[in-house]
Amino acid sequence: MERLLSGMQPTGVLHLGNLEGALRNWVRLQKDYEMFCCIVDWHALTTMYNRTDEISSSAREVAAEYIAAGLDPEKCSIFLQSHVKEHAELHLLLSMITPLGWLERVPTYKEKRENLGLNEESLSYGLLGYPVLMASDILVYRAQAVPVGKDQVPHLEITREIARRFNFLYGDVFPEPKAIVNESAAVVPGLDGRKMSKSYDNAIYLSDDADTVAKKIMSAFTTETKIRKSDPGIPETCVVCQLRKLYDPEGYQTSWEEDRRGERGCVQNKRELIDIINASLEPLRIKRKELLADPAQLEKYLEDGAERARQVTSETLTIVRKAMNLR
Amino acid sequence: MERLLSGMQPTGVLHLGNLEGALRNWVRLQKDYEMFCCIVDWHALTTMYNRTDEISSSAREVAAEYIAAGLDPEKCSIFLQSHVKEHAELHLLLSMITPLGWLERVPTYKEKRENLGLNEESLSYGLLGYPVLMASDILVYRAQAVPVGKDQVPHLEITREIARRFNFLYGDVFPEPKAIVNESAAVVPGLDGRKMSKSYDNAIYLSDDADTVAKKIMSAFTTETKIRKSDPGIPETCVVCQLRKLYDPEGYQTSWEEDRRGERGCVQNKRELIDIINASLEPLRIKRKELLADPAQLEKYLEDGAERARQVTSETLTIVRKAMNLR
Repeated sequence: MERLLSGMQPTGVLHLGNLEGALRNWVRLQKDYEMFCCIVDWHALTTMYNRTDEISSSAREVAAEYIAAGLDPEKCSIFLQSHVKEHAELHLLLSMITPLGWLERVPTYKEKRENLGLNEESLSYGLLGYPVLMASDILVYRAQAVPVGKDQVPHLEITREIARRFNFLYGDVFPEPKAIVNESAAVVPGLDGRKMSKSYDNAIYLSDDADTVAKKIMSAFTTETKIRKSDPGIPETCVVCQLRKLYDPEGYQTSWEEDRRGERGCVQNKRELIDIINASLEPLRIKRKELLADPAQLEKYLEDGAERARQVTSETLTIVRKAMNLR
Repeated sequence: MERLLSGMQPTGVLHLGNLEGALRNWVRLQKDYEMFCCIVDWHALTTMYNRTDEISSSAREVAAEYIAAGLDPEKCSIFLQSHVKEHAELHLLLSMITPLGWLERVPTYKEKRENLGLNEESLSYGLLGYPVLMASDILVYRAQAVPVGKDQVPHLEITREIARRFNFLYGDVFPEPKAIVNESAAVVPGLDGRKMSKSYDNAIYLSDDADTVAKKIMSAFTTETKIRKSDPGIPETCVVCQLRKLYDPEGYQTSWEEDRRGERGCVQNKRELIDIINASLEPLRIKRKELLADPAQLEKYLEDGAERARQVTSETLTIVRKAMNLR
């Protein structure tokens, strides 16, 4: 069975965009791969080094949400990056063979640098080295596959380049991991019509209770020109209709046609969507709550996951040290 | 007792310059400090990543030579950096809080870059991060003191800056290590009159046997204008006279005066120096040979050293993780 590594940032709770865009796919993948789900708390330091109190608790929430959404901690090893020290050792070794130029050309580095308004002074060495740490996270499992969003493909390309360079210098140790891009992944619209994103403040979270979901959907954008019930709607650009299609793929069409013909008001449309989404999220919410109510059990999942991870990573580092003549 | 960290590069055997310039001082320091002598094999990768086969064997030779010169492996923990994984973990954590600008300003980085004729493409991420790894090596022992050459003082200053920044962000964890600069350290002239250095190919090594030492000294530069025995010498610029002063501090003056007056030939001068230096190095050579002839015992010294080191470093990382809220 091929090995797969997926990483999750412990930087806040998950929203429907994460759920439909990535998580559902991972749940499917755990059947076909030996899967390692790494909550990358060390990575989070690149941008959260001055508010680390959030990292540990976020990591636990993220773990609970992934399990609640269907990742099976028995099948798939879920663990914290900082609990598996070999990530740091391989990071140091790979840092010695990664040319600076490769890192400076990474698009997200340039972006982050500009977005955060950072100059050389406030930019950390670790932020520049983000792709080296990501490469370590993947290669330390000698993973064959990594599920990524389209925007992350260039990052994975650096991992593949680093693997090639290592293999060239020290012999064939690392497979070049292939990207699993979920082409059919739904792009979930946020409440304001833009892509759902934490930074746009337009998201429905897995942690939102039924009332919060109701309030949020009642405030969602619909068809701008539809003032009265009898005005015709345009379902293709209406957030509520789009979410209805996503969460009611069998039955959405009648509601769309009524909307288009001006036979259905936005309020009715929203009320029905609230019920549909709450029904879909409810089991996940219950499971999430249960998991967070039993921190010892959650910690046990994370420890078991880290233990299984370490079995692989310690083997990898033995191979790596031998290949590099370090003893 | 205060803690002291000293680092040694495993990049070849030691010469008289190392012995008189640093090692003798360390032997004295082991009485006053809890001393950790780290053979920095991971550091060696910054420049030797493509000939790693030399690193491990050099590390053992260096260890043998340090012990032969008087470092007591019972008092002073001698070990390999790569055997104490916490160096890598702290390196990763410190990389997140070290501004790039600090690293790009380090004089030796610029120098190396120019000396090696390196551009951004061939320069590795790890070479730029050298001072971060050095900071980890020191801070992971919460060392109060580091013996350094004058040229390394700016490096230690970065360690102190990183310590201050960590303490500012996460609370008072690291003492700011002070530099122990051995002002009275002898500058040992090489055979050609320049400073003794491996890269000038003008060195006498602790590993040289008596015959090699004899041949090397016979070829050493003396006073340029002294062709015949009766020509007056200038001891102040004569390599042989300088080494005589260093290794015969009580008795050198008569020989200097004879040289100055043209009453002593360079050959006699060299023959006497050969005997003096060989007599001084012989016990060290015997001990060195014994140590290298018993690799199991040497390995045991290194393992014991690493074990004592880990006791301190694992405690440090527990404190660090707590301070950073990583759990």
